[in-house]
Parts: sequence; structure tokens; C-alpha cells
Amino acid sequence: MENFEIYNPVKAYFGRDVIQNLAQEIKSRGNRILLIYGKGSIKQNGIYDAVMEQININGSEVFEYSGIKPNPLIEDVRAAVSLGKSKEVDLVLAVGGGSVIDSAKVTAIGIAGDADPWEYVKGKETPHGAVPLIAVLTLAATGTEMNCFAVVQDSATNEKIGFGYPPMYPAVSFLDPAYTISVSAEYTSFGITDLIAHALEAYFGRGDASLSDRFVFGIIKEALEYGPQLMNDLTNYDLRARIMYAATMALNNLTAYGRKSGDWGVHSIGHVLSVLYDVPHGASLSIAYPAWLRLHKDRSADRIIQLGKNLFDVSTVDETIKQLEDFFTSIGSPIRLSQTSYGDYSESKIIDTFRSNKVSGMHHRLSGEDHNRLVEIML
Amino acid sequence: MENFEIYNPVKAYFGRDVIQNLAQEIKSRGNRILLIYGKGSIKQNGIYDAVMEQININGSEVFEYSGIKPNPLIEDVRAAVSLGKSKEVDLVLAVGGGSVIDSAKVTAIGIAGDADPWEYVKGKETPHGAVPLIAVLTLAATGTEMNCFAVVQDSATNEKIGFGYPPMYPAVSFLDPAYTISVSAEYTSFGITDLIAHALEAYFGRGDASLSDRFVFGIIKEALEYGPQLMNDLTNYDLRARIMYAATMALNNLTAYGRKSGDWGVHSIGHVLSVLYDVPHGASLSIAYPAWLRLHKDRSADRIIQLGKNLFDVSTVDETIKQLEDFFTSIGSPIRLSQTSYGDYSESKIIDTFRSNKVSGMHHRLSGEDHNRLVEIML
Repeated sequence: MENFEIYNPVKAYFGRDVIQNLAQEIKSRGNRILLIYGKGSIKQNGIYDAVMEQININGSEVFEYSGIKPNPLIEDVRAAVSLGKSKEVDLVLAVGGGSVIDSAKVTAIGIAGDADPWEYVKGKETPHGAVPLIAVLTLAATGTEMNCFAVVQDSATNEKIGFGYPPMYPAVSFLDPAYTISVSAEYTSFGITDLIAHALEAYFGRGDASLSDRFVFGIIKEALEYGPQLMNDLTNYDLRARIMYAATMALNNLTAYGRKSGDWGVHSIGHVLSVLYDVPHGASLSIAYPAWLRLHKDRSADRIIQLGKNLFDVSTVDETIKQLEDFFTSIGSPIRLSQTSYGDYSESKIIDTFRSNKVSGMHHRLSGEDHNRLVEIML
Repeated sequence: MENFEIYNPVKAYFGRDVIQNLAQEIKSRGNRILLIYGKGSIKQNGIYDAVMEQININGSEVFEYSGIKPNPLIEDVRAAVSLGKSKEVDLVLAVGGGSVIDSAKVTAIGIAGDADPWEYVKGKETPHGAVPLIAVLTLAATGTEMNCFAVVQDSATNEKIGFGYPPMYPAVSFLDPAYTISVSAEYTSFGITDLIAHALEAYFGRGDASLSDRFVFGIIKEALEYGPQLMNDLTNYDLRARIMYAATMALNNLTAYGRKSGDWGVHSIGHVLSVLYDVPHGASLSIAYPAWLRLHKDRSADRIIQLGKNLFDVSTVDETIKQLEDFFTSIGSPIRLSQTSYGDYSESKIIDTFRSNKVSGMHHRLSGEDHNRLVEIML
């Protein structure tokens, strides 16, 4: 086992009607709120009203920035930072899924600093802390509600970049499974894929961390058991709760402790599909993971077999990959680009972007030849 | 799933030589330190010197209270509180195992308040916060390094009581597996038993929390796999590390999320054995758990069978209990009082103390008839 630091300061309220604690949590942190959300679905399903009711209890001033895209853009972050600075906000409140909360995280460091926020994301400028962030989650998927990571993209340069910074931990997160009940079948499925992919990125990282491996298996088995049930019963609160909790635990450091690093090569691949063709993040991962596993069937045979044994009670690499593909297919998440129509896919364009973005993993490095093979399998 | 709150603010440094971060962590928190430890083994194995070296970097003033017993006494806490108050300390530094850290936790609230500390433990007075606490762990067992619970006893009244209070979370904990290498075979075994018992107390609590159950299985399987290896190789750093990390995760809230409560009836039983005969905590649990499971073989058959299936791949209650007993025996932890010689056990005295202390679980209530049967099985 590697040396590591256990730390996660997020306070997360989980369960039905937990939004009732929002007013008191706002009160101790700020009085001028930048409210960030997406394309407005929260105005249809009542979440916006519930949040505003809490804000009004304190009589806080609130300024809204909406319109965050599913694959979030640095342009929106820049605009949100400008609004937040001009209104001198002291708290950012994000209401949405991963794209909204990730944008809010970068906005929170943008407001606290002077540089262009993209420079922080790219690691070219060091941030100077963040204004406090409270998150209200409406989609079970990315785990951003309980970690200090954010992923945003710059469509102008075809870059989609993830980075981590401890002041970006939300101070408080609100996780009400009922808030995810209106999520479509498609995005519910992509969320399940996303949480599985997060656990796998840790598992295929560097270092020998047996208990963290067991947590990976537990989280994925939870998704394998309750994911398909949820797909058949989308309004079931209890099933929404199990998937929501699994998604949170899949990327809140728990699966990482004791490792030198995760791998994150598959995310790096998926990000290229998203930035080029706006492929939803979860869909990009159910396409990229089987391809990555096929590429590593000899290089990581032992780890893949251990995974298959623990998740599916199978004993070969091929059976493990097949089981994972069948699972993604069963919940409606694509496993090949050819099953989707997000764009007019160009093999050479994808490969070129793999190269220009230096697509690779932190543990398993990907060569140019690997890039070619991956695209071949994914198409 | 029940509503719940995810929260654990402890920062824990895990790994070799992490003590090197102690000076900087002290610096931001205090300058007048109450150092609490046990009977002085830390002076033989070099840990005391390593800690003092860090304290001296800041030039902090340090006042020592030593002599904490393995089953910690409220008398010692009272004396430590007096010392801390008279020296106006602003930080408590605990160096030891569960008994030392638990005593330090109660000392930290005692210093911050005015009441007799036993009144806080008994829930008769509300504490008013705590001075900050830093823990340096020397025994893998209780998990106290990453939770806000403490257990102390009053030998005068034969009470051993556990309680929780959020300001008792250590601010920082230092977990160096090398610091546990000099722990005897006996106490290493008791530590493994303790961590398994903690995971089981969560599992047999109230509420349906499937992912937390999976974490329970993962933690116990880690102990089942590496515990026996460690017993055969006590100076192996890597095995010490795996057990130390499992013990921390077994009682840091992770196994509790989504449940209404744990059970803790077995701890309540074990505490009576400790307070009457000074039975080491871990030994009391390896004796009490099989007895408790036999008592619940019909009442909780489904849960016991699910446990057996996941841990031992067996399918009956009897086989599950047998496997657990065989495991405890294999690592040298007793499963019957008759295998031990901590005292001249009196069936009626144990039963009387069960009754006077209202020994029961929070989920599975224990009747007077249950008390009789438990003692019969344990003897």
C-alpha cells in the first residue's frame, strides 16, 4: 500500500426532503448568492421553487446564471465569474447535475481569483481558494457532489480537461433521490455507466490497495443489481436512492485510498468523443471502456480476471468484457459508436484529437498504435 | 434506505513516517499541549521520541498525563482534565490505542466545559464543544482515530459507556502501520476481532442499506484474508497496513450510512465482561458475538445466512457461526470465557450486571431470559 491521506470535508444531506436544511446552511456562509443551473428543467419539476423558498427564508440576495450545457463550456464559466464578481457574491449555489456543479466549482475559484478560469483548469495559474459552494444534486452520475474535481471543455480548442483542487469541495451537498425521478431513461442509464466507469478508473490505477478494490466491487455490484431494476421502474424512490448513493461513493476518494493513482485513460478517450461530437459523457464511457479492456486483455489480464470473478463470477478476460458489454446494453447505454448518431464520426479526426490532446492513462500509457486500435474497436 | 448525513471531517495521514507532518498540524491549532498516553510502551519503541521531536520543532509547551489503562477509567479522564485546565492547554495530543484516544476525547470536552466529564458520558450534561484533538495511533482496533465516539468506564459503579459527540472527531490522525509492529500477538488478534465486531454491529442494525452491507462484507473479508497472514508474520509492514486501514474504515460511519441505527448489543455484553473482570475489549467480543448469533439464529436467520454466503460461501446459520468461531480461534481470540482466566467468573454476577446496566441492542432488544441464555453460552 502507498502512503495516502484520508480527507473529505463535504457534509452531504441524503434523503427525502433534505432541502429543508438549505436555509440554515446558507445562513452561516453567505448572503449574496450566485445561483447556477442548466437549461431550466428545475423550473418544471419544482426544484427551483423549493430552492428559492429556502433562499427567501434568509432574505438573501440571489443572482442567477443559467444555461449550463450537458458538456459544460468554459465560456459559461467565464460569464458566471463575471456576474459573480460584479454582484460581489459570497456564496455559489449550484442546482443540477455534474455539468452544473463542475461549472460552479470552477466559477467559485474564478470569483476568488484574478486569472482567466481556463488557466486554472489547464494548471497554468494557481488558484487562490474559492468562495464557498453548496450543491443541490439532480442527477446521479458524476460524484462531483462529494469531491474536489471538475471537468470543463473549450470547444474552440477541442479540449475537455479535468482537474482537482481541495477548495472546490462543496461545503454542503443536498442529495434527494426524489430530485432524480424525472431524469430520462437515457440519462439514468448514462449515470449508471458513469459511476461504474469511475470505480473502474480507480481499480485499473497504480498500486496495490486490496480494501479499496473491495469497495470498487461493492459499488459496481450495487449498480449491477439495482441499475436494471431502476431502468424498469424509473419513478421508484428506493431504487433512485441506491443508485444515487452508489454514484456518490464511486468518486469521493473512497476507491482511491492506498493507490498511487487511478488510471483515467478511458475518461480521456471519452472526453474526445464528447468534445468532437457532443456524445453524452456516460455514453462515451460505455463505448470507450470495452474498447480499452480489449486493448488491455493481455497487458492487464490478471486484474480483468479478478474483476470478472468478483462482479460476474466468470473466470476469463473475454467473459468479463462480454458481461460488462451485455450489462451496458441491457440498461440502454451504447457500446459502439455505430449504435449512436451523435455525429458523422471520422476515424482520422478522432485519432488526430487523441494525439493532439495526448490521450493516455496515468498508469496504462497509450501509444499512437493504441489510439488507432481503440478507434477501430469503438466504431 | 433511511435519510442520513454523510460527514467525517477527520484528516488522516496514513503510511510510513507520516509523523513528519505532526509539527505543521500542531502549529495551526495550539501552542500549549496536553500529551496523553498509556503505560509508557511508547517510550520503549521510539514513538514518544518521534512525537517530542515534532513538538519541539514549534517550541510548544507540553504537559504529560500518562497511565491510561487498557479499559480506560473516568478517574484518569478527570485527572487529565484537571491538569489540562490548570495548564490552560489549547490542544490535546493522544498517543496510543483506543483507550488513550477515547480518554483524550472525553478530556478534550472536559477541558472545554465545567461539568464532571462522567456527566457528559452519561448524557446528563450537554458538552460545550472540545479543545482540538490530534491522535497518533499505535494499535489497529477501535477505529476511534476517525470517529466521534468514546467509551470509558467507572469501576466504582461497574458501568462502561460509549457515547458520540461531533466535536470529539480528531482534527488530525496519524496512522503509521510501523507504529503497530511491536503490538503483541494477543492484542493484534484482539484488534482484528474488534474491527470485525464493529462491522457486524452496523450490519445487524436497523434499516435496509445494501451498499453499506457490501462495505461491511469488504471490510470483514479484508480481515479474514490478511488477519491470519499477519498473525504468522507480526513484523510485516504491509500486512499491518492492511489491517490498520480496515480497522479505521470499520468504524468511521461508512458502514452506517442509510441505516436507522447499528445494533451494539454485543458491545454492551462485552463491556460487562470488561468492567467486571478486565477482559480485554477484543476478547470480550470474540466471546460475545458467537453467543449473540446463536441467540438470534432464528430471529435473524436471513441476515446471518446472507452474511455467511458473502463471507464464507456457506448457506446455513450454523455453518456461518461455526466459520466465525473457527476464524476467531485461528487467530488466537477466545470464543468462550472458559478458555480464558481473566477472573473467577460468576454466572449470577454477570447476569445481575447485565440487568443493572440494561444490556441490550438498539435494534435487537435483549430480555432477561436472553441474558440468562447468553451467559450460559459464553461460559
